[in-house]
Amino acid sequence: MQFGFAFLEAGSVRAKNTTNILIKNILDLYVGALCYWMFGYAFAFGKPGNLMIGGGYFFFINFPETELPLFFFHWVFAATATTIVSGAVAERTEFVSYLFYSVGLTGIIYPVVSHWAWSDEGWLANGPDVSYRDFAGSGVVHMVGGTAALVGAAILGPRIGRFDENGKPVVIHGHTVPLVALGGFILLFGFFAFNGGSQASVSQPGDAEVIANAVVNTILSGAAAATVTLSLSRLHFGEGKWSLLTTINGGLAGMVAICAGCDSVMAWGAVLTGIIAGIVYQLTSILVERLRVDDPLDAVAGKCLYY
Amino acid sequence: MQFGFAFLEAGSVRAKNTTNILIKNILDLYVGALCYWMFGYAFAFGKPGNLMIGGGYFFFINFPETELPLFFFHWVFAATATTIVSGAVAERTEFVSYLFYSVGLTGIIYPVVSHWAWSDEGWLANGPDVSYRDFAGSGVVHMVGGTAALVGAAILGPRIGRFDENGKPVVIHGHTVPLVALGGFILLFGFFAFNGGSQASVSQPGDAEVIANAVVNTILSGAAAATVTLSLSRLHFGEGKWSLLTTINGGLAGMVAICAGCDSVMAWGAVLTGIIAGIVYQLTSILVERLRVDDPLDAVAGKCLYY
Amino acid sequence: MQFGFAFLEAGSVRAKNTTNILIKNILDLYVGALCYWMFGYAFAFGKPGNLMIGGGYFFFINFPETELPLFFFHWVFAATATTIVSGAVAERTEFVSYLFYSVGLTGIIYPVVSHWAWSDEGWLANGPDVSYRDFAGSGVVHMVGGTAALVGAAILGPRIGRFDENGKPVVIHGHTVPLVALGGFILLFGFFAFNGGSQASVSQPGDAEVIANAVVNTILSGAAAATVTLSLSRLHFGEGKWSLLTTINGGLAGMVAICAGCDSVMAWGAVLTGIIAGIVYQLTSILVERLRVDDPLDAVAGKCLYY
Repeated sequence: MQFGFAFLEAGSVRAKNTTNILIKNILDLYVGALCYWMFGYAFAFGKPGNLMIGGGYFFFINFPETELPLFFFHWVFAATATTIVSGAVAERTEFVSYLFYSVGLTGIIYPVVSHWAWSDEGWLANGPDVSYRDFAGSGVVHMVGGTAALVGAAILGPRIGRFDENGKPVVIHGHTVPLVALGGFILLFGFFAFNGGSQASVSQPGDAEVIANAVVNTILSGAAAATVTLSLSRLHFGEGKWSLLTTINGGLAGMVAICAGCDSVMAWGAVLTGIIAGIVYQLTSILVERLRVDDPLDAVAGKCLYY
Repeated sequence: MQFGFAFLEAGSVRAKNTTNILIKNILDLYVGALCYWMFGYAFAFGKPGNLMIGGGYFFFINFPETELPLFFFHWVFAATATTIVSGAVAERTEFVSYLFYSVGLTGIIYPVVSHWAWSDEGWLANGPDVSYRDFAGSGVVHMVGGTAALVGAAILGPRIGRFDENGKPVVIHGHTVPLVALGGFILLFGFFAFNGGSQASVSQPGDAEVIANAVVNTILSGAAAATVTLSLSRLHFGEGKWSLLTTINGGLAGMVAICAGCDSVMAWGAVLTGIIAGIVYQLTSILVERLRVDDPLDAVAGKCLYY
Repeated sequence: MQFGFAFLEAGSVRAKNTTNILIKNILDLYVGALCYWMFGYAFAFGKPGNLMIGGGYFFFINFPETELPLFFFHWVFAATATTIVSGAVAERTEFVSYLFYSVGLTGIIYPVVSHWAWSDEGWLANGPDVSYRDFAGSGVVHMVGGTAALVGAAILGPRIGRFDENGKPVVIHGHTVPLVALGGFILLFGFFAFNGGSQASVSQPGDAEVIANAVVNTILSGAAAATVTLSLSRLHFGEGKWSLLTTINGGLAGMVAICAGCDSVMAWGAVLTGIIAGIVYQLTSILVERLRVDDPLDAVAGKCLYY
């Protein structure tokens, strides 16, 4: 999914910023691995821990080898959460500052949140009457990443020229559609692995059906969201505009929305989730622009370019 | 394989049509998923069915969860059959018309044909003396897609400027070689999963060897076809022309040809299949152009460009 | 990994040589498959063999079907070793000569070396007191490929214009950064499969942990090497230069270095291996250029372009 985001972003920014965005994405992965080895995994799943944070296994000391697949899995999730932000703050973030942010989110924030929700000891996973449930990370991965992205983009302010002197939005064209599509396609594939693979840490009878269910629900929710988003965008912007970027982003919105429950909802529930996700995506997309927050990956920004 | 076709096509068309072809390919996938959920799978494998068509499981009603992997698998196959056509009719098909076609092939035609050949009840699978055998879809997927593509391209007529006033073919250059290569590489990988994965619905001892056999036969047939096609093209077009597109398309022809029997033929049989496929591909490629049918993906059309 | 190299190279060469490099990479795969079927596998693992070379299973005659996965695996390894060279000799190698080389390395040299190290009978695998150990091919795959690449590049001499009349190096710009990044990303993914998959031929209890260990060590070594290489390059070349190509190549150096022991070293050992690999990569990169050997993929050659 890292690579999917990388190309989605690389194609959505202006040509001069391509290398910059690609190096940030690859460093999210590498720096994330080192941080996750040093302290990230320790904060997330290190034993003994408490309700708020884990505390053990720093630098893999006393780390049980059986948790290596879990380490791999959560490293990928952490890097995904981190990289979600890189698109929203693209074209206006200094390189070294970004590295500090990357260490902070991958190594500290994401591990702490995943401890809450996914470790044996976290307070969310151990609610007194009802416990938090998030199969593949709608909240733990995407909401954490998305919130950081919104805050980051709002604090940084829009790119120069994104809004004119009257505050009217100006389209800044991305430089290459095929790269965006490549990114979108890789992400689509990535979601199958992400949502299907979320079962991987458990190995009991019935796993195969849970995985198949998760994958089919992911497809159906993404398909419903993409169709709704594309139709809304077509109604809103008029004749002849069938936006590729809107289709891709809408589909991703549907797949993000179904992450949490993709192992357990029925197929019609996944379609319904996708429909709601498509509508919500289209509305927030308009809202974010109205608030003068600039997300270079957003479909509205690209609405005049891609059709 | 969807993504492979998408980039093969995106690189083979002119720059102005890139976005159009990419959105068609992604919608094949999304629209196909919804159709397949609503009625496609019902027509293909819904119980109770008859010799001609299935009839049950519409909207997953009474759908047995154990068939979810089968659903995923056939959705991918259906979308592959559908997307084969998008290349042949590229650069001259209206968007909404294409969507109607996509629904028709993914949701009705492919399911009915796959019911004939692959369900317990179909007439092809239950011949009185001899029954139809097609391991990975040479006929069910590729012949269905290919026939629809040929009919579509013939009815639409060639692109404007593809043949001059005397009916002489004119080369219309694709706009970017690396995208074509990316598509070809993804398809090559896709074929390993497609042909190896065709075993997936069965889980008996000996599966591993059947899968390995299928994959190795796929490689050998593709390699033989690519080598033959490249050599023929070199002999035909003279000095210094080593065509990348011909190599890619030739290899794909070999892999399509071996789909049906890749689980059971010997290695030399796969090489022989590939050699025949390479020769047939080169001859039909010439024939199709002689008949003034225009396939934007065909190697002959690109023969002067790629060397 | 083949495809990763293909795009790494396609982006690093000048636009006019893109098609040439892509066709060489795809033919490595196809020609390699045919050679490996005809005689490559026979030289490597054919029974009966001797200390130096295998001798049996030519054209799969008497080939035991249970070794088909091993065939697939070694075909991929052989093609990887072969393709390593194509980058080093890029932009100045005649097409047919390259084919001869490809047949020689894939079909003869690599099989013989892999017989030494990995067959039951080879002299390296059966040392009298101590035996050679190479889990995922640091020596068998990468050192063979790398040595052939160095010899090839030295014999061919540099590209015209790579060194001026005083022998001072001149940067020849690659033509497209995103393709290089695509290649680097695919290779990164490929290494997980390569190093994790090296376990595949054995199936005993504990495999899962060996695979997870191999993958995590691969990540950590790559991450350490990329970080070290990037830092060294930043110190060496001064302000504001954060090179994408250096990061990618450094990471690959770390992953190549850990191949041999990735199944057995501890995590801190993998990090240490990566640090050493990063330093060695940076030094040899400078040394190779001082010796007037021209490697179009090398980061130093691209140092002014990618930042």
